[in-house]
Amino acid sequence: MQMLHRDLSVQVELPFDEAVTATREALRHEGFGVLTEIDVQKTLKEKIGADLQRYVILGACNPALAYTALQHDINVGLLLPCNVTVREEADGSLVSIMDPMTLSQLSRAAGIEEIARIAREKLERVVDELAQ
Amino acid sequence: MQMLHRDLSVQVELPFDEAVTATREALRHEGFGVLTEIDVQKTLKEKIGADLQRYVILGACNPALAYTALQHDINVGLLLPCNVTVREEADGSLVSIMDPMTLSQLSRAAGIEEIARIAREKLERVVDELAQ
Repeated sequence: MQMLHRDLSVQVELPFDEAVTATREALRHEGFGVLTEIDVQKTLKEKIGADLQRYVILGACNPALAYTALQHDINVGLLLPCNVTVREEADGSLVSIMDPMTLSQLSRAAGIEEIARIAREKLERVVDELAQ
Repeated sequence: MQMLHRDLSVQVELPFDEAVTATREALRHEGFGVLTEIDVQKTLKEKIGADLQRYVILGACNPALAYTALQHDINVGLLLPCNVTVREEADGSLVSIMDPMTLSQLSRAAGIEEIARIAREKLERVVDELAQ
């Protein structure tokens, strides 16, 4: 359980749109493509008229790691891609990344924990790059 | 931790494409729209030339529940939308849904567990509809 609370987050002094761009760039440097992007603010406004701050959910995926994980346990798609949220804050933007160690809680298959650890190290470098 | 292993899965006697359509339909009946669809087979083939069975990840979202959850804890976007995977099996297709109770493991905020429980009940009905 503990791992689920250790998300990878960083406060950046960038306006929202620039923070999203910087996040995509930092993910790319570590081999993560963005497969999906959900504009949460826009979606909730359109669907139910609700108001939310600017907020996106990016679905980040490192294809080689994802494929290796799926070979170990075909069920891990339930936690792929890796969610990365960017939201507007009063003094910049907050980027949060789902801890890939969660994968090793979903699956006890041999090898999953090691893949999750490698993914986490890459995502820690993403956070480090954004923190600079 | 236990909840993470109680995913909502159902084997359906439908070819893959029909299983995806039926899954979208059953989700819609319970108020879940599909915000994202990742063709995992195609993505892995294109990115790294890897071969996988037919496999999609649908990002399902019930806007009212999602908004209520975000009001209780703005961080829950890390586990939204709710992943639904459909994959080809030898004798049909397997549909698996991420257990929304996972949300209540990510967040201890008041109200999250109740929202997750409501979502789970809806998704159990999705599984029941597909099982018929």
